[in-house]
Amino acid sequence: MNKNSSNIMALAPSTSNKRETVCIFGTGDFGRALGHKMIQSGYPVVYGSRSTQISNLIPKDAEVLGHAEAAQKAAVIIIAIQRQHYGFLTPLAEILHGKVLVDISNNLKLNQYPESNAEYLAQLLPGSKVVKAFNTVSAWALQSGTLDASRQVFVCGDDVEAKQMVMNIVRALGLTPLDKGSLLAAQEIENYPLQLFPMWKFPIFLSLGLTVFFFFYCLALDVIYTYIYENNNFSFFIAITIPNRVCPVMALILLALVYLPGIFAAIIQLYRGTKYRRFPDWLDKWMLCRKQLGLIALAFASLHAVFTLVTPLRAFASWRTGKGIISQVLNNRTEPLNNTNAWLSDSYLALGILGFFFFVLLGITSLPSVSNNVNWREFRFVQSKLGYLALILCTAHTLVYGGKWFLSPSAYKWYLPNIYILSLIVPCAVLVVKFVLIFPCVDKPLTQIRQGWERNPKCSE
Amino acid sequence: MNKNSSNIMALAPSTSNKRETVCIFGTGDFGRALGHKMIQSGYPVVYGSRSTQISNLIPKDAEVLGHAEAAQKAAVIIIAIQRQHYGFLTPLAEILHGKVLVDISNNLKLNQYPESNAEYLAQLLPGSKVVKAFNTVSAWALQSGTLDASRQVFVCGDDVEAKQMVMNIVRALGLTPLDKGSLLAAQEIENYPLQLFPMWKFPIFLSLGLTVFFFFYCLALDVIYTYIYENNNFSFFIAITIPNRVCPVMALILLALVYLPGIFAAIIQLYRGTKYRRFPDWLDKWMLCRKQLGLIALAFASLHAVFTLVTPLRAFASWRTGKGIISQVLNNRTEPLNNTNAWLSDSYLALGILGFFFFVLLGITSLPSVSNNVNWREFRFVQSKLGYLALILCTAHTLVYGGKWFLSPSAYKWYLPNIYILSLIVPCAVLVVKFVLIFPCVDKPLTQIRQGWERNPKCSE
Amino acid sequence: MNKNSSNIMALAPSTSNKRETVCIFGTGDFGRALGHKMIQSGYPVVYGSRSTQISNLIPKDAEVLGHAEAAQKAAVIIIAIQRQHYGFLTPLAEILHGKVLVDISNNLKLNQYPESNAEYLAQLLPGSKVVKAFNTVSAWALQSGTLDASRQVFVCGDDVEAKQMVMNIVRALGLTPLDKGSLLAAQEIENYPLQLFPMWKFPIFLSLGLTVFFFFYCLALDVIYTYIYENNNFSFFIAITIPNRVCPVMALILLALVYLPGIFAAIIQLYRGTKYRRFPDWLDKWMLCRKQLGLIALAFASLHAVFTLVTPLRAFASWRTGKGIISQVLNNRTEPLNNTNAWLSDSYLALGILGFFFFVLLGITSLPSVSNNVNWREFRFVQSKLGYLALILCTAHTLVYGGKWFLSPSAYKWYLPNIYILSLIVPCAVLVVKFVLIFPCVDKPLTQIRQGWERNPKCSE
Repeated sequence: MNKNSSNIMALAPSTSNKRETVCIFGTGDFGRALGHKMIQSGYPVVYGSRSTQISNLIPKDAEVLGHAEAAQKAAVIIIAIQRQHYGFLTPLAEILHGKVLVDISNNLKLNQYPESNAEYLAQLLPGSKVVKAFNTVSAWALQSGTLDASRQVFVCGDDVEAKQMVMNIVRALGLTPLDKGSLLAAQEIENYPLQLFPMWKFPIFLSLGLTVFFFFYCLALDVIYTYIYENNNFSFFIAITIPNRVCPVMALILLALVYLPGIFAAIIQLYRGTKYRRFPDWLDKWMLCRKQLGLIALAFASLHAVFTLVTPLRAFASWRTGKGIISQVLNNRTEPLNNTNAWLSDSYLALGILGFFFFVLLGITSLPSVSNNVNWREFRFVQSKLGYLALILCTAHTLVYGGKWFLSPSAYKWYLPNIYILSLIVPCAVLVVKFVLIFPCVDKPLTQIRQGWERNPKCSE
Repeated sequence: MNKNSSNIMALAPSTSNKRETVCIFGTGDFGRALGHKMIQSGYPVVYGSRSTQISNLIPKDAEVLGHAEAAQKAAVIIIAIQRQHYGFLTPLAEILHGKVLVDISNNLKLNQYPESNAEYLAQLLPGSKVVKAFNTVSAWALQSGTLDASRQVFVCGDDVEAKQMVMNIVRALGLTPLDKGSLLAAQEIENYPLQLFPMWKFPIFLSLGLTVFFFFYCLALDVIYTYIYENNNFSFFIAITIPNRVCPVMALILLALVYLPGIFAAIIQLYRGTKYRRFPDWLDKWMLCRKQLGLIALAFASLHAVFTLVTPLRAFASWRTGKGIISQVLNNRTEPLNNTNAWLSDSYLALGILGFFFFVLLGITSLPSVSNNVNWREFRFVQSKLGYLALILCTAHTLVYGGKWFLSPSAYKWYLPNIYILSLIVPCAVLVVKFVLIFPCVDKPLTQIRQGWERNPKCSE
Repeated sequence: MNKNSSNIMALAPSTSNKRETVCIFGTGDFGRALGHKMIQSGYPVVYGSRSTQISNLIPKDAEVLGHAEAAQKAAVIIIAIQRQHYGFLTPLAEILHGKVLVDISNNLKLNQYPESNAEYLAQLLPGSKVVKAFNTVSAWALQSGTLDASRQVFVCGDDVEAKQMVMNIVRALGLTPLDKGSLLAAQEIENYPLQLFPMWKFPIFLSLGLTVFFFFYCLALDVIYTYIYENNNFSFFIAITIPNRVCPVMALILLALVYLPGIFAAIIQLYRGTKYRRFPDWLDKWMLCRKQLGLIALAFASLHAVFTLVTPLRAFASWRTGKGIISQVLNNRTEPLNNTNAWLSDSYLALGILGFFFFVLLGITSLPSVSNNVNWREFRFVQSKLGYLALILCTAHTLVYGGKWFLSPSAYKWYLPNIYILSLIVPCAVLVVKFVLIFPCVDKPLTQIRQGWERNPKCSE
């Protein structure tokens, strides 16, 4: 091995401006796109193909040979063919011995085969050095040169020097290689381009469902009820008023749902008296999508903030202001400033602003580049302390704003509670249980359990 | 080679707290700054200089020797001299054989020489291991310890172990090394510190030009026309009203310009019947600066949002509100709520808010740390689907707001169309053509072409 | 060494799906948590323990042996015991020879020992390859699978291959290894998890102190004074009005404090005539926390913006608007638009918006992922040019808004100046001195000094 690799290494950087020939097996779309790009970057390219007749789809400057002759011309061979045809490489095992084979294949489904394509290739040709790379890059993007998202190329392989050679090619094409370790990572790398926001699916469906429910709830109470019983046509509430009721409710409930699984986990651990048993599956999954839930809650909170701030610009608002002032004038009286009202209005606004401020701070610290720059203690401080602070402020904001509705009978149209009352159930429950959990008599055993102590070690087996 | 390098490696980490002597050729500003920093980090430093008399600019703890003696004392030699003086190193070739030479030089212009300085050095001294590093760090920043931006040090070189040694020094100085591959990357690394937002130049000049044009267009129609024909002095419109007309127009046009090149590319590919021919140069360049155009559009949209939200705080707004109410009072009538007006005002606000929301989402996903964490499929989904959604919403927002101006003759002061009408041309054109392109009869051949199919393969040669 | 390492390397990736046995010394909390995680990831785990009786806290699938037998079964041994017990490893030196020892220990205080734990371990067992890793990961997070913050595992060590093996294990556990170089970095890595925003402490305490001072200053002048002398109860000002006075003042002062140390540095350098002498300690520290000061200033500015934008939603605002209009109606006069007022109000709003806009731009460029993508020249351009532009715009915003207070005697309640006047002292001083510094007769020698020139080189020794 050593002789071989030092030999390859010596070739690679020797004559510094001349690049090594690269061989590509397969003349499909991706093989051609990659060849084009490599020729542009100064690599001599030779294609290995069944039919060596000159195909005019292949880049002009590339040579086309049979597989065996093509392979002999290069130290690096890119396998741009599909997994089901890998079998035909077995007869070439001798020629491919010691060569670097780059597996660029993708599957159609997640975990389609028991082992990854790259590992399968390595099993077929144990003498070759298989490196997984390029599968996350799109042929269309390579061709058009618009590679915003996918500059990152995941590379993995068991042979360090082979990996280095492939990473140098990746860099020369203007892409950024990212070493993902040994060939064991190939499965993960092959699954990567098939995903479409896997962690976001549940949070998005949950919030879509809740949003639709609350929207129609508001529509019934604010527009239809008013139209039937008070004969007022407030259909234009659909544009701003109702969204601005649904958004804060969604933000508050989703934010509470971020902290609810932590509460459940603490209760389960206290009950079991050990941390060395797995949580139920639903709780595990819930805990893993807390970040996504929080970010969707932040989106709703931002929409709520903007919807609220445009209020004075609405035709409805200026009409209402005018009506109020004119009625004062016509009654020939000037209302004095109601101090309680001023306190209520100002404090609910201030609570909302501060709650939103800490919420945005949480959002900023969850940016990957920021959270990579804080340590575990700092992250916990921000996500736990500041998160609960934001939850407390937002709940107080809702309580001060919507508090008056609790007791007013007019709030119970059709005997249904106002949406504010519904929105407060989950956050208040979370805050009450959390308040109990920080009492020393509960907190102390919980801390011990989390440090590895067990209540009754025997039964934990 | 093997003997040499293992020897160096054995020296490097052996006695764990004692650092290896580093030699610096050249006592210029950067050489001295680097020496200071290295001595602070615990490295013994020896300078190689023509005149070995003790210069008091050199850090006190450093030794100053002739080039040859200095070189013999260290395994790593930093070449802090200018490229045009590299010639004098040739006689030292024997002493420098097997040593690690760190090229830290910069040029005055982009691509000043045919080959990079580091490659030139490697050609002069083929027996030495040349590593490019430190050129992106500023001497002033090194000296003052304020290294916010430039903690990243790009390193490249053909010898892996030499590169490792230099990267260890970089880390010891509190900086972050970034391996850019073999010495071929040196040209790029040398060009890096000379750039000043190269991708931003065209988008910024374009938007500056358009902004100035629209500003004077509005100034003429809203201030000068009003002053001449209606004798109203609305000069204070310059501060907020006119900027708040120019900003949304610029945001909408620039957002449409982000999606226009994609439309052109699709038409060209459909016409040619192949994707294997390069786009015209102007289209290539345009496609590469789409991200920048989009971010500038987002900046304009944000300014528009804030300018709009402060409206109720303006003296002009409260004067106008008061005037309206007082005129109602004096005429002794209360206007009822105009339902159509309420619908129009609320829906245009809601459309604007949602459009801006998706626009901000686009902006967040274009942060490097976020876009590195999504795969190609996810990036396409966000940039294409959400981007078009934002464009549709913003165009609808403008249509609902400015629609009434189309037919009103008063909107055509001096026979010039209102600015809203101008702003709608490009986005409406983009949306109409895109709508045609997603029809199956057009979309199907386009998809085939992008997957590598060619209409008439013969003529493509 | 070579034989040994190639032997280990050959074992590592050989049979691609079977992972190597890992040995863990110590059955404490972290040892057990790591073992659990490794077994989940497919590693056979063997524990080395004093008492080999089966402890039911240890994961079921793990084997428990004496230290010596356990060590012989694995190439990688994780030392999950505390530093003070490292002594007992010395008798095992022979068995541990050539093995990879992973030091995962943490200390209780910063720089608790003269040398890092990992270096101490390497001194005790010079024949073993010590790698520092995992100390930044929390046991609780490993257990519960919620590893948002701490996916990054810092790894350092003198032996490259040993480091590679540990990094492969890190990747297999779903974490991201980050190579920090040789074992010299261990001290830094051990200090890392003990920090809680070390750079933020001074800026946060400074701004807390100033905020409290300005809050009570405003409370005295705006609420208590009004209550005593004018008998008006404006206690609700505490919620929004006073915070909205304190926030802009804090933002402006902190932004000026970001640029003040640069001014001091320039003056000191001009006075000394050289850059080759260290600044006083307080200035060095101040310069290092400028980014934090700036971000806190941005937070205050954002709060100021939101507090201002909610103004029209306050009960107080609508009461005041109504009062103004009603008094106009009752006096039967319509006030014409005051053009000067309109200009002042619009221009102060426009200046504030633009200042805030550039301030936010500065904030975005200080995100780690963004600042890593700009070079030194671009970063300087943004932080220096745009930063001063923001400072100028914000100062002008305050001057235009608060200018009328300077001369009005009613602004000097209790002979104290209005808070606006206080807030302008630092920024105006910074801008005036900066204006002097950019005059050619001052700028030229300063530039020369920063390029390494010295006024009187002899006295610098």
